[in-house]
Amino acid sequence: MAGVDRIGAASLENVSGFEGTEGGAAGARRTAEPDLRIGRPLSELDTPTLLLDRAASDRNLAQMVNFFHARPAKLRPHFKNHKCVTLAKRQLAAGAVGMTCAKLGEAEVLVAHGFPDVLIANQVVGDAKLARLVRLALRAKIAVAVDHEDQAVAISKAATAAGAVVDLLIEVDIGMGRCGVQPGAPAAELAQRVAGLPGVRFAGLQAFEGHLVNVLDRADRTARAKAAMQQAIDTRRMLEAAGVPVGCLSGCSSATYDSTGTMAGVDEVQAGTYATMDRQYHRLVPEFATALSVLVRVISRPGPGKAVLDLGVKGAGGEFGVPEIRDYPDVEIPFFLAEEHTVVRNAPDWPIGQVLQLIPSHACTTCNLYRELVVHEDGVVVDVWPIEASGRLA
Amino acid sequence: MAGVDRIGAASLENVSGFEGTEGGAAGARRTAEPDLRIGRPLSELDTPTLLLDRAASDRNLAQMVNFFHARPAKLRPHFKNHKCVTLAKRQLAAGAVGMTCAKLGEAEVLVAHGFPDVLIANQVVGDAKLARLVRLALRAKIAVAVDHEDQAVAISKAATAAGAVVDLLIEVDIGMGRCGVQPGAPAAELAQRVAGLPGVRFAGLQAFEGHLVNVLDRADRTARAKAAMQQAIDTRRMLEAAGVPVGCLSGCSSATYDSTGTMAGVDEVQAGTYATMDRQYHRLVPEFATALSVLVRVISRPGPGKAVLDLGVKGAGGEFGVPEIRDYPDVEIPFFLAEEHTVVRNAPDWPIGQVLQLIPSHACTTCNLYRELVVHEDGVVVDVWPIEASGRLA
Repeated sequence: MAGVDRIGAASLENVSGFEGTEGGAAGARRTAEPDLRIGRPLSELDTPTLLLDRAASDRNLAQMVNFFHARPAKLRPHFKNHKCVTLAKRQLAAGAVGMTCAKLGEAEVLVAHGFPDVLIANQVVGDAKLARLVRLALRAKIAVAVDHEDQAVAISKAATAAGAVVDLLIEVDIGMGRCGVQPGAPAAELAQRVAGLPGVRFAGLQAFEGHLVNVLDRADRTARAKAAMQQAIDTRRMLEAAGVPVGCLSGCSSATYDSTGTMAGVDEVQAGTYATMDRQYHRLVPEFATALSVLVRVISRPGPGKAVLDLGVKGAGGEFGVPEIRDYPDVEIPFFLAEEHTVVRNAPDWPIGQVLQLIPSHACTTCNLYRELVVHEDGVVVDVWPIEASGRLA
Repeated sequence: MAGVDRIGAASLENVSGFEGTEGGAAGARRTAEPDLRIGRPLSELDTPTLLLDRAASDRNLAQMVNFFHARPAKLRPHFKNHKCVTLAKRQLAAGAVGMTCAKLGEAEVLVAHGFPDVLIANQVVGDAKLARLVRLALRAKIAVAVDHEDQAVAISKAATAAGAVVDLLIEVDIGMGRCGVQPGAPAAELAQRVAGLPGVRFAGLQAFEGHLVNVLDRADRTARAKAAMQQAIDTRRMLEAAGVPVGCLSGCSSATYDSTGTMAGVDEVQAGTYATMDRQYHRLVPEFATALSVLVRVISRPGPGKAVLDLGVKGAGGEFGVPEIRDYPDVEIPFFLAEEHTVVRNAPDWPIGQVLQLIPSHACTTCNLYRELVVHEDGVVVDVWPIEASGRLA
């Protein structure tokens, strides 16, 4: 992506200059018949439909990349949030240095669309996956997280046999209690063992303060996230003092970009949700706009104040609570558990057929449920972007 | 489906005799290259992979249809559970009278695969949907739930303009508090108004005891579900006494098939989950086997007793709690909220790479996350069935 202007909003439209090796689905679509929804008002769309407010998303993209423009850390957005190649291209065009993925299958989608530099921020295990991984590493710069020598040795063998090189980041557990080796000596020892393996390159460390990103009080979140990330930075310094160069420390999120993302010794920020936003993250970082929503319809008015909307947990992630109705923040959604319905308690006099926008509580699991993002501005559809990595779980 | 043998297991393999107007994806696939996974042991598969134990599912299908063989009510299985056309064909071949859907998009998939008789157990609202609905009703017998005259009038207008006829079931709220008109006089009045509309046919009533299906104590569940359904039966009798014939009362679930499904006046049982089963329903109706699971791998062993599996809420529904690990019922999964990970606390000495089967807590939302069911018997892959209606939310 050398030569891409990093300044933000003004360059966001310049996605046609992207150097894809296979073109993108969006590109392919543009040569076919135009989508008949383009140019129509949202109220005429079928429901549920996943919507993205393009101007709001563009502002989010510019705002995040501008934050890091004069800072040492670089932005490596997390593809798992939206899984949409067009939106990922816009993130790179805005100035991101590469993409982060949760799954190998997501990385395969990005590489197939010409992305040259992808981090899989997760352990890649099993013969079937190793065969796919080394095929991918022959086509692009691929980094993978490891937290045990067994994973690294298996990748080393597969990469060596294929003539590929896979970058490895040692994942350090800084308190989340999920994957990761303990910081300090255990991480440093694993790094030194990995550094001697063929077919792989010890590229640095990964650490994610995921147990703290939902702390609502921002000062408290900042202090605790920095203390957590300091353990990874200390591990980095320990390795460097032992003569082991640490190319990169990658971590952080949209909720901690301005805390851990500004610490000396942190090189890459894996923020994801800032591009689309959701109800939960909007509580945490209100400086980003809720660009994502789901268009829904009132399908029933079964009693006074009660309205039933045509969306449930098959159409929006519910892990972080109930969605919010755009422009109706006071309308109460008591629970969000049904597969296809949302029941509202104190609804105004919406008729059956009324169209509304639900802001989901969790954008990452919501986008994974759809095949396309219907992109709008000023209430009119302006584009439709495929979600190429929807359902890429493996 | 006239002439299909209703007796169950012996006829379950006879799906090739299905009279599809466009053939099925599974049929199309069988003429192409065979899936290389067929014949391989599960341990060699990539993960996560959605699995169906064919023998266990076949037993479930036979058991449910045999239960209703000598009873008045007929089985109309709910497609929303698995969204897989091949499995739906097996349900019809086993003796079901038609299919139930939650969404118009699911019904479109079924009709495209030749299913002649589909109930959409939900309100269908909005111009885009009405245009789709009447196109469908020109090709198959389609019934739709309504709970307000506005929905029925809109369908009537669209159907009349298209020369189609849509069957309408009045949805009666028997306590769930979601959609549905109140039982008794309000439901009877709506039925009488609907019965006079052109382009539609008043076909009967729908009532779902969804607020009671998760009552764990079976005697309590039975008593309360029967009391709830009695309100719909009383509404039926009220209409019949007024000279309005009620062709059908449709409702019930896999957890109440043997309670409300045996009541005089109930004609159709919309059971869904019995075909695949999940952890929650297995608590409720243990006579059906957990045929569905997700093949997962241990990707990390970050500490004593701790194991991390490569599946989270992007790969299994979590609304009804944590999944269970097949053959390891005592291994503790404290929570199930991460997108791509499950952390296990008291794991045995599984190595990194160990393959396991997770039984999801909710089959319906799990199947919707996948594109295919990998079908196995005795630990070996025997077939791969597409999940054609995955993501059909609209």
